[in-house]
Amino acid sequence: MTEEEAKKIVNSMNFRHEMNTVISVLQDVETKEILMVGNMNREALYLTLTTGKTHFWSLTRKTIWMKGETSGHYQIVEDVLIDCDEDAVVVKVRPEGPTCHTGNKSCFYRSFKVFLANQ
Amino acid sequence: MTEEEAKKIVNSMNFRHEMNTVISVLQDVETKEILMVGNMNREALYLTLTTGKTHFWSLTRKTIWMKGETSGHYQIVEDVLIDCDEDAVVVKVRPEGPTCHTGNKSCFYRSFKVFLANQ
Repeated sequence: MTEEEAKKIVNSMNFRHEMNTVISVLQDVETKEILMVGNMNREALYLTLTTGKTHFWSLTRKTIWMKGETSGHYQIVEDVLIDCDEDAVVVKVRPEGPTCHTGNKSCFYRSFKVFLANQ
Repeated sequence: MTEEEAKKIVNSMNFRHEMNTVISVLQDVETKEILMVGNMNREALYLTLTTGKTHFWSLTRKTIWMKGETSGHYQIVEDVLIDCDEDAVVVKVRPEGPTCHTGNKSCFYRSFKVFLANQ
């Protein structure tokens, strides 16, 4: 995506609530599995759109981070879907390794049954 | 799910930030399409788990609402996945009609290309 296209999208989004972010849902473009959910502020969304690698805003550390910057497991952006009220995006990605810090492919690796069995 | 199981899950979740909510991603159990994203507070998550219909917390109206309460387009809960740090859930649902208030099946009905073409 060109810088101009990315600016148009960023300027159309509704960065909401105290955090000034949009919700970003990462979905595997092939398997359609949901990999993780993160927050993107203006800069993180702009960097995601222009570099083709997912970037997020850490609400706790107050910094931009790129998925894969330490692990090498980048997420390559294949498509971006925008929701009806412009405060959330689905980013379809090709993951270059597990997304979750636990080593699982997805952060959503536990169904409620597995979760309850381990309580 | 029993009330006891639902209470165990709700008590394990990390309701975060100023809103005291978890992020909830609704996914069509058949097509794997992402339908919408919403916020659930303790009560909305508990009601979702015990009634088998999705409930949300409206950050603007400060009320609980059930998907379909006005449209009749309920979302029937088929599975719930919990993320690694317990502050987000994926709810796999069987939608009984379009999810989006625009009449589209999903709130994420615009790829960025369509979005830019309509700016």
